[in-house]
This record gives sequence, C-alpha cells and structure tokens, in this order.
Amino acid sequence: MTTINDNYLKLKAGYLFPEIARRVNTFAEANPDAQIIKLGIGDVTEPLPEACRTAMIKAVEEMGDRSTFKGYGPEQGYSWLREKIAQHDFQARGGDIDAEEIFISDGSKCDTGNILDIFGKDNTIAVTDPVYPVYVDTNVMAGNTGPVNERGEYEGLLYLPITAENNFTAEIPSDRVDLIYLCFPNNPTGATATKEHLKKWVDYARANGSIILFDAAYEAFITDPSLPHSIYEIEGARECAIEFRSFSKNAGFTGTRCAFTVVPKTLMAKTSSGSDVELWKLWNRRQSTKFNGVSYIIQRGAEAVYSPAGQSQIQQLVDFYLENAQIIREKLTAAGLTVYGGVNAPYVWVKTPSGLSSWDFFDKLLQTCNVVGTPGSGFGAAGEGYFRISAFNSRQNVEAAMERITDKFKAL
Amino acid sequence: MTTINDNYLKLKAGYLFPEIARRVNTFAEANPDAQIIKLGIGDVTEPLPEACRTAMIKAVEEMGDRSTFKGYGPEQGYSWLREKIAQHDFQARGGDIDAEEIFISDGSKCDTGNILDIFGKDNTIAVTDPVYPVYVDTNVMAGNTGPVNERGEYEGLLYLPITAENNFTAEIPSDRVDLIYLCFPNNPTGATATKEHLKKWVDYARANGSIILFDAAYEAFITDPSLPHSIYEIEGARECAIEFRSFSKNAGFTGTRCAFTVVPKTLMAKTSSGSDVELWKLWNRRQSTKFNGVSYIIQRGAEAVYSPAGQSQIQQLVDFYLENAQIIREKLTAAGLTVYGGVNAPYVWVKTPSGLSSWDFFDKLLQTCNVVGTPGSGFGAAGEGYFRISAFNSRQNVEAAMERITDKFKAL
Repeated sequence: MTTINDNYLKLKAGYLFPEIARRVNTFAEANPDAQIIKLGIGDVTEPLPEACRTAMIKAVEEMGDRSTFKGYGPEQGYSWLREKIAQHDFQARGGDIDAEEIFISDGSKCDTGNILDIFGKDNTIAVTDPVYPVYVDTNVMAGNTGPVNERGEYEGLLYLPITAENNFTAEIPSDRVDLIYLCFPNNPTGATATKEHLKKWVDYARANGSIILFDAAYEAFITDPSLPHSIYEIEGARECAIEFRSFSKNAGFTGTRCAFTVVPKTLMAKTSSGSDVELWKLWNRRQSTKFNGVSYIIQRGAEAVYSPAGQSQIQQLVDFYLENAQIIREKLTAAGLTVYGGVNAPYVWVKTPSGLSSWDFFDKLLQTCNVVGTPGSGFGAAGEGYFRISAFNSRQNVEAAMERITDKFKAL
Repeated sequence: MTTINDNYLKLKAGYLFPEIARRVNTFAEANPDAQIIKLGIGDVTEPLPEACRTAMIKAVEEMGDRSTFKGYGPEQGYSWLREKIAQHDFQARGGDIDAEEIFISDGSKCDTGNILDIFGKDNTIAVTDPVYPVYVDTNVMAGNTGPVNERGEYEGLLYLPITAENNFTAEIPSDRVDLIYLCFPNNPTGATATKEHLKKWVDYARANGSIILFDAAYEAFITDPSLPHSIYEIEGARECAIEFRSFSKNAGFTGTRCAFTVVPKTLMAKTSSGSDVELWKLWNRRQSTKFNGVSYIIQRGAEAVYSPAGQSQIQQLVDFYLENAQIIREKLTAAGLTVYGGVNAPYVWVKTPSGLSSWDFFDKLLQTCNVVGTPGSGFGAAGEGYFRISAFNSRQNVEAAMERITDKFKAL
C-alpha cells in the first residue's frame, strides 16, 4: 500500500485561525445582531496602489498582442524586477546584494516553507516563542521534529522565549544551532531589532556555521532611521543569512501575490561528507525544478512599487496602517492595558489584564466588545498572557473597536 | 555546521534545456546570420484570449476600490472558480468530482513536485521512459532514489519504456509499485490513452493499493471523442488517482500562471502503522500551510476560460496549434521521416533517420536547417533515437521550419 508522510500526523489538530473562526461563528450565531470587528488576521484592507494597477493593466494588454505576449518567464523572476529590488531595497541601504541573488516568488509563506527542501535532516533548529506558526509547522511536516507536548512544543526544536522580560528579543543560545528563524519587525509581538542585536546573531551564526532565516516581511513599517530593514545591513550577513521579503504588507499584495527571497552567492553549507556547497545553487535548482515563476502581469505590478509614484503610494499605505497602530496603542493604554509593538510594526502586542489567559481574554473581548484579536498563546507557549491586535483594517473599524474597548473595559 | 539536502548532489548536471541553449548559442555565435527557429520548449506563442484579459482588467480595477478589494483568498482557490472547473471539466464529461476536491495552484510543475510532500519515503515509484523530467528530478530531490547510472536512470525508480514497439503506452508492471506517474496526451511522445488502457491502470492501482499521479495538462488537444480527457472518466479512479491540470496550454497561461490539482476525498493511503488516511486532508493541510493561493486577478482570468466567449477563444487556440502539428506531421512524413503523435497532442515525436542518435540529429537539424527541437534521449534512455518537435509556435515559423527541412532533408 502507498504510505503517507507520517509527520503530518504530528501536527496539532486545533490550528489557531480555524479555532478563532469557530469561536467567532458560534458567537455570531448566538448573537445575530452583533457587529463584530475583526482585528485578528494580518490582512490588508486598503486598495492596491494606482501605480501597480496601471502597470498590471498595461501588462494584461501586452498579453493580447503576439509581439508583446509573454510565455514562460525565468523561474527566478524577470531581471528588470530583480534589479530594481537589489538597488532600492538593498544597495541603497548599504546592503551588498546583487540582482541574481534575488528570487521572485508568489509568497513568503511558500518560501519560508520551501526553503527547508535544500537543507539536511540532521540540522538543529531554533525558533522564537511566540512565533509565526508556519516556521514550526513546515519543520514538523518535513520530519525535522518529534511529537508535540502538552505545551504545544515539538520535540527537537529549540524554543527561544521572547517576552516583556527580555524586551522581546531572544537571547543568543548557549548551545550551537544550525538554522535560526528570526522575524523583525516581529510577527506577532511587533518588536524590532537594532543593528547591534542583529550583529550578535550574525557573529553567533558565523562562529557556529549556522544559517539565519530572516523574515523581513514587515520592514516597510520601520520608521526609526537607526533600525535596519535588512539583515544584509549587518556586516557578515552575506555569509550566514537568507532573507524573505514580501509585497503583501507594504503594497497590499496579500491577494495579488508577489514576494522574494534573497540567497547570497557567498552563503555555504556542508554536505554530509563535509564539503562546502553554495546554497544559491541549490535554491536555484529547487526553484527551476519545482516552480515556474510568478505571473508576468503580477511582476509588472510589483515593479511599479519602485516607480516614484509607487514609492509615494506605498508610503501612504504604510503610514495609514501605522496611524491605526498608534490609535490602538493610545486607546488601549488609556484604557489601562499594557501594550508593546505597534510603533515600527503593524501589530500591537497586549498584555492580558488581571492575569487572564490569552483565550479567556479573547472570549471576553469578543463577548463584551464584539472585537476579535488573536490569542498570544496561539503563537507559542511563551505567548500565553498576551494578545495580538492587528492594525490592518479601515480607520472606521479601528476607531469603532477602540471606542468599544474604552467604553466597556471595566467589564473586562 | 549546517548541512544541505545531499540528494540534490545526485541530480545530473547537464540538464536538457540548458544543454540545448548552450549548443544553440554556440551555433548562433559562429553563424550570426542564421535565422534560427526554435521548436524545442513547449511554450505557447499566441495572445491570451480576450475573455481572460477582459476579466483580469476588471479584477485589477476591483483591487482599486476598497469595497471590492481582495486580500488573502482561500488557499485552495475561490469557490466560483473551483465550481466552474468541477462542472465543465469533470461533471459534464461524467467525472464525479466536487468543487471541494479541486485545489487551484500557480502551476502543474509546482503541484507535480509538491505532491511528494504528503507521501512516505518508502513508496516504490514508477515513471515512463521517456518522461517529463520534473517527475524524476523531484523524486531525486525528495530522497526517493539512489544515484544515477550511465544511462541516466536513477536507482530505485522503475522505468516503464514507451516506444513505437508498444505504441507508446507502458505495459502494466508485473511487480507492485506504489506511485505511478502517467501523462496523457503524453509529453514528450504525443501519445494518447484509450479508456480501455486507463481502465487497466485503474484496476491495477486498486488491486495493489497504488496511487496514479495523472498529468492531463494537454487534455484540451484531444479531438477524438472516444478518448478520455480525465482519469475520472474511468470507473474506480476516485479511489486511486490524483489529477493535474493546467491553463498553460489550453488558454496560453504559461506566463500568466494558473493550474489545478484534483484530490478526491475518497482517496486513501496508509500510515506506517497501517491505518487509512484521506489524502485530501493532507494536501489541504500542505496547501494551507505552505501556499497562500493564486492571485485574485489571475483566478478571475482563469474563470473567464469557462465563459461562452472564453470557451470559443480557447478552442481557436487549440485548433491553431493542432493545425501546426498537422503541418509538421505532413511535411516531415513527406520528407521521408517516421512521425508519431501530433494528432490529439501538440507534440510530434520523430524517429531519427539513419539510426542517428537524438543529439546527432539535433546537431544536424540545427546546422543544416537552423531548426531547434528537443532530443528524445533528454527525456530518458528509451527516448534515444527519437526527437520532439513542438507545435507551439507561429504559423510562419512552423511553415518556414518545415520548408527548410523539406528542402534540405537529403543533407540530413
């Protein structure tokens, strides 16, 4: 008989977002008149920038003419897009990244999962706790972990707690690990990393032959000029880091789908016999064999992000969501809650009041204010007692939600 | 030190299409005036159907209005697209497939590779020879094979020869295998399968607990009404087959990117302890965790394929390429060559004359006629002595290429 990948059976059944949906649906059925406001999932709500739309319409029209029609493109993405990314997102900020080191994809979720294809099965892996669940689940599916315990932790993963006590920046592990997932600005806590903090990670990785998998999907929300947008702003990162970037949150591409991954040609890892291999070659082979590139139309839309009009329009989008975050921070603080993040990040990380568990606070907020957020414990055991509020919503919804919390907070 | 996936080192270095490009470039540099016509890679050349373009422009415009803007869509695809596919491509032809069993993706290349994620490592795997190289290479990368031998065959794979002697339909194996890749209409040979032939495979799979991975990317080219377009037209296939479909070749989406995979909810495989698990649940989990759905804009373009205008326009495209195939068949036959395929398929499979090897014929055709095709041996050892000519090109190029071959064939 054909067998399945048994590792899938290790995955926790009660995944975070389906469980949220279940509780919201139950509440909505029992309270059909409730106007529920969802500040849970980090999905954008505002229109796609005009520059991107104009470019995509032009690209669709080109597809209608034999002389400008595009069939298969390069699996790695078109060079006109890769070059603009290398210049604007890296070289302009002092990051020494070449266009050939950029691989265009249809999403960071895909890339952060697929990257495991090119690594061995014997690597030790560290994640922060709380953490974006995809890093963990894809390792489980790839067979890089043992079973889950009652705290929701998988055997074989090293969990690095990030809490208010350590300012939401994980301590460098005392033991060696091979692969380290870092996400700054952080999902879910909204924390950021200074250059000094990242330098410690880079130094650690280089000293230990480790690889940092750096998720910078939220870099556009950094307003503090001292904070790095890319790990390649740190000396030595070309020797130890892969970076994931996305157009989802800066340009509102969550439904349009374009992202990219940076694999420097100087990044090496070992064969089982101890020889060095360029990870760029492996990722290039992986993408060439298992991927056929992003739609020409969508790549033209992404390219428009780098036009002067596009740059101005995405800045307006980012500013808009950051203003939402500021409103959330101010209103929750005024209501007596302790909040973190939301300054250089679109997520506000709330300490639950009165020692409530994350899920108890979720239920109270839903029942009392009809507002949905995300329980911190859903992102990991150390997220217990925290709660994520997303700034990705309309101003009207954000203000209405905060008004309800302000009015009814005493009941919480 | 971080280790790599050593299985990548087993992959043959001289991949088919890069080697073709190398030889063509060398020839072009030495012969700068040569007008080279490429009938190698199976990439479409004609404009995207108007119905699809109109739908995509409308979708782009919707993205510009807050009230119609789309963020994250369902990872499995929008139901309006899945329902149309289920109805038109399956139910209308007697295939009992529900919309929920259809997973929209950005390409069949991705899906045929990614599907291995959900299977165990101990399955025995059969491929035809010649074969679409992605099936083999993704198994190598996943660690499902041993090293390659001098014939280009990987240890641990069962190769089923398809040649003129067996009418390009593989014999059912005498031994049990778990996973079987079948592709009809076939790439590269252009062969088709009757319902009776597929029934034998379905019966074999059901008797042995095997799973058929059925690639129907070229089904639109079937003109013979007796031939099945889908394996689900065969009784029992819901219990043993996954089917891959694409908009690349029927609607010219190679650069636009949309495809889908069908996983019936009745399809089971075993855990290592022998329990049954629904493969639908595993694929759903895989796609939900490692994929974020296809662009809304592109899905609207794919949906338009099923409108009356879209159906008429894709039929014109298919007819156009089939006429190319007919011209190729006729001209090559008249030139004294023996040809197969090209009737219900966009590929013509040519027997090389005078016992020439596939690569020798490639070189002669390039040097004498300045025409590029694909050496059959690049698709597997049993493809030696054959040559693939693609019908995906302009009429002008096809006619010019055939004229050159007719004129200069004596020199070959």
